[in-house]
Amino acid sequence: MTKAVAFTKMHGAGNDYIYVNTLLYSIPDPSEASRQWSRPHFGIGSDGLVLICRPTTADADYRMRIFNADGSEAMMCGNASRCIGKYLYEKGLTTKTSIRLETASGIKVLNLHLNTDDSRRVDSVTVDMLEPRLDVAEQYDGTRTDGTFVSMGNPHFVIFADEVPTTPVLTERGSALEHDKAFPQRCNIEFAVATAPNTFRTRVWERGSGITMACGTGACATAVAAITTGRADRSKPVEIVMDGGTLTIEWRSDNHIYMTGPAAFAFEGTVDLP
Amino acid sequence: MTKAVAFTKMHGAGNDYIYVNTLLYSIPDPSEASRQWSRPHFGIGSDGLVLICRPTTADADYRMRIFNADGSEAMMCGNASRCIGKYLYEKGLTTKTSIRLETASGIKVLNLHLNTDDSRRVDSVTVDMLEPRLDVAEQYDGTRTDGTFVSMGNPHFVIFADEVPTTPVLTERGSALEHDKAFPQRCNIEFAVATAPNTFRTRVWERGSGITMACGTGACATAVAAITTGRADRSKPVEIVMDGGTLTIEWRSDNHIYMTGPAAFAFEGTVDLP
Repeated sequence: MTKAVAFTKMHGAGNDYIYVNTLLYSIPDPSEASRQWSRPHFGIGSDGLVLICRPTTADADYRMRIFNADGSEAMMCGNASRCIGKYLYEKGLTTKTSIRLETASGIKVLNLHLNTDDSRRVDSVTVDMLEPRLDVAEQYDGTRTDGTFVSMGNPHFVIFADEVPTTPVLTERGSALEHDKAFPQRCNIEFAVATAPNTFRTRVWERGSGITMACGTGACATAVAAITTGRADRSKPVEIVMDGGTLTIEWRSDNHIYMTGPAAFAFEGTVDLP
Repeated sequence: MTKAVAFTKMHGAGNDYIYVNTLLYSIPDPSEASRQWSRPHFGIGSDGLVLICRPTTADADYRMRIFNADGSEAMMCGNASRCIGKYLYEKGLTTKTSIRLETASGIKVLNLHLNTDDSRRVDSVTVDMLEPRLDVAEQYDGTRTDGTFVSMGNPHFVIFADEVPTTPVLTERGSALEHDKAFPQRCNIEFAVATAPNTFRTRVWERGSGITMACGTGACATAVAAITTGRADRSKPVEIVMDGGTLTIEWRSDNHIYMTGPAAFAFEGTVDLP
């Protein structure tokens, strides 16, 4: 007898996950569930599985665990944490608009922006993405001159270009750069084109995943690189326009990067455990 | 106020559709719903939308309408009609094991094969795919010598090869052949490799869709071409192994082609109308 689990499909700028409230439904093998359910055609189809859990510390409101489509557990995903903020509030699991979310890379603070006409709805969420680092020896040897290195925990290399790369060009250049010897842990690659003041059309090649609809840390890294190279004004928000939507990045005086962006429900479902 | 619609996601050999019972939920604009819901990342993600409807004739039990992911209405899909057979029986909409299904290309007869241990379950479904035609002047000019033309209503060109084409090769050769001047209505292209007696590993390039997991009429055409060229024995079933699963084809003495294959539930859901 298979056991049915209720799930919610959500996306943040096109980065789509299956969300399960583990206070109601336990998932004995989340790696296997993520692999099976993420498959297009045969499963549900997604970028992975996100578990909403009780926190392991009194310092947090909830805990998030995130599994990639290949079954590996990820540290953190800015797009997924925005979706969790909307989920917790709109489904009545919290009445707070500032939520402390425990993740595998520490506690992240989510700030919810409610709809002005309907305060039961969350329009967007701001995530504190902590401090950028411009120089991480174990991630970058400093030898390349064609772009700017930024670490948001994970490594990014941002290249400012005159035109947005096509998918074949992004695939060829992105995969070559990902594996360049300058990056001992491999690297995420961003190509950014200035399209208006403080606005950049950006396409991302994600380390291990290839082209994705949106990358939260990649948007942060692009904004930081634009500011440090004089292409953007730090006193105003920077808009990063990705394939799946726009993320707004602020580098505030506390030296933290704050990312604001959309979160959306796609549909509700039930599925058997694998 | 948006209206929620219950749907069922099913697949037949990896050919996946969203199924809605329109006796319970009306879909005012199925083309738009298919386009929106079929989108990966943002919608549900599928090959299209199938509506289960009341028949317009007393000669049929139910009616199927099928919409592609681009919103266009299709005539018929063997993989989807197998899924409808399982849906109608397992959800209690019929107790018949032989179902007459009205489609845009006439009434199709579905024969359900029940699980021997649990007669509430449908293991597989046989669909009468009617008669093949080897010579349809408006679909093929007869000039090519590298393959066999078969019409199952829609045109197919079957090429027997020594090895299964890789995805880049299938894309290059399939798209070139689809648009070859020999095929005035363009053509579906099959590459088939004999792997055992009456068994063929087949990959399909579908007219207008490209590479798909499985193509019901393509499997029928491959079996017919194998029999007419002496590569298979008509007195036994022919197994066609596609990317998404295996279909069993019989060319019976009534000159009809019968296709038997799997049908599976993936998950249940609810989604807002677009």
